[in-house]
Amino acid sequence: MVELHGDERLDYLLDERMKIIQSPSVFNFSLDAVLLANFVYVPIQKGTLLDLCTGNAVIPLLLSERTKGTITGVEIQERIYDMAVRSIQYNHLEDRISVIHGDINDIPEVLGNAGFDVVTCNPPYFPTPSETEYNENPHLAIARHEIYCTLEDVVRVSSGLVRHGGKVAFVHRPERLLDIVTLMRQYKIEPKRMRLVYPKAGKEANTLLVEGIKYGKAGLKILPPLYVYKENNEYTEEMLEILYGER
Amino acid sequence: MVELHGDERLDYLLDERMKIIQSPSVFNFSLDAVLLANFVYVPIQKGTLLDLCTGNAVIPLLLSERTKGTITGVEIQERIYDMAVRSIQYNHLEDRISVIHGDINDIPEVLGNAGFDVVTCNPPYFPTPSETEYNENPHLAIARHEIYCTLEDVVRVSSGLVRHGGKVAFVHRPERLLDIVTLMRQYKIEPKRMRLVYPKAGKEANTLLVEGIKYGKAGLKILPPLYVYKENNEYTEEMLEILYGER
Repeated sequence: MVELHGDERLDYLLDERMKIIQSPSVFNFSLDAVLLANFVYVPIQKGTLLDLCTGNAVIPLLLSERTKGTITGVEIQERIYDMAVRSIQYNHLEDRISVIHGDINDIPEVLGNAGFDVVTCNPPYFPTPSETEYNENPHLAIARHEIYCTLEDVVRVSSGLVRHGGKVAFVHRPERLLDIVTLMRQYKIEPKRMRLVYPKAGKEANTLLVEGIKYGKAGLKILPPLYVYKENNEYTEEMLEILYGER
Repeated sequence: MVELHGDERLDYLLDERMKIIQSPSVFNFSLDAVLLANFVYVPIQKGTLLDLCTGNAVIPLLLSERTKGTITGVEIQERIYDMAVRSIQYNHLEDRISVIHGDINDIPEVLGNAGFDVVTCNPPYFPTPSETEYNENPHLAIARHEIYCTLEDVVRVSSGLVRHGGKVAFVHRPERLLDIVTLMRQYKIEPKRMRLVYPKAGKEANTLLVEGIKYGKAGLKILPPLYVYKENNEYTEEMLEILYGER
């Protein structure tokens, strides 16, 4: 059993294999987090993985289906951190997933140069919100806007915590492609794989997935595009597989 | 009539509307040049366009169908420059297309800060060739390898010759995406539009088209992917339209 607070509900994740606590007023995971958890390279049998700005731990939960390694999440908002902890307990994954309540900028001190094999982050996408936006819903404002961490914070901290040769993967908006790859190179994470997500055929890309290697050699591969919807607005076969797993 | 030298032949361009001089041992244009000429923004009624590393002037010839402006090409190899001049004459486009025989690195002195509206370049893709490669066919080696101009030369010269707010477009390999966008920003050409070309569905991208604006505002759009071949290895409808024009 799991205790639910306020408007929280228990949603299915990966068909009915897992459940996750969500709350419209506090935090719902996005499709982008699911795409990142599917895109990133993971060591299958063992390894250490870190997810920054983890929210309700959607990425660690999804990664736990792809790897037998241990996964650490970091979340700054105590209310959301608490949702993450309860979701992990509900799915009996406490031995493999742990969440730290804290600011990613303080995490290098806590974890040292831990040499993670993989670091992921679905960071806040937007610049600082207006005061009104912040006051209306600080939970959502913090998750979506660069209030407590900028893109540069995310890249710098990721680079500090990944081992030499380890992988770092981000999801962001295509408009920020230049910023993200420039920062990755600046912090010695060489971009190696990129995938663009298009809402449907004929439309511009609206999501960018990128993975780099710490101290990697230059040379980027651009994977086949991912389309979310078919012409008839149903999910594509590939999206169904990502959302619900092998069927 | 046109005089053909050695193994030169007169090939069709854009269905049968134009012809262009090619030579297997000296220079054949590539699909990439055709894609760039199709991708780049052009002012329709008037304007000044510049094509660096123009080869047999395939890009200026193709652009002349899209714009009434004047187009200048620059080619370093005299033998290929001569093919370009004869192709332009053959198509009676001398009043709208001119070609300069010279090194792009010297061109800013020749043209001054001419303030072109549009600059294009399909540059050499590969690092310096081996001595054997060079000796076997210096014409092809120079066109394909960074012997007389590096990617940085191309971006620097383009930036110097385009007007404030003008467009600069390149075609290159996806592996060099990072280098090209980093250099564009360094030389104040903000990448604004990008398109990835995939040989067919399910394959990695093998060509990158990117356009920037001199002193443009940050914010990149990633256009729908372009597929070259269908599953049955025939050209896609979009490629047929690019290759042979509106049908």
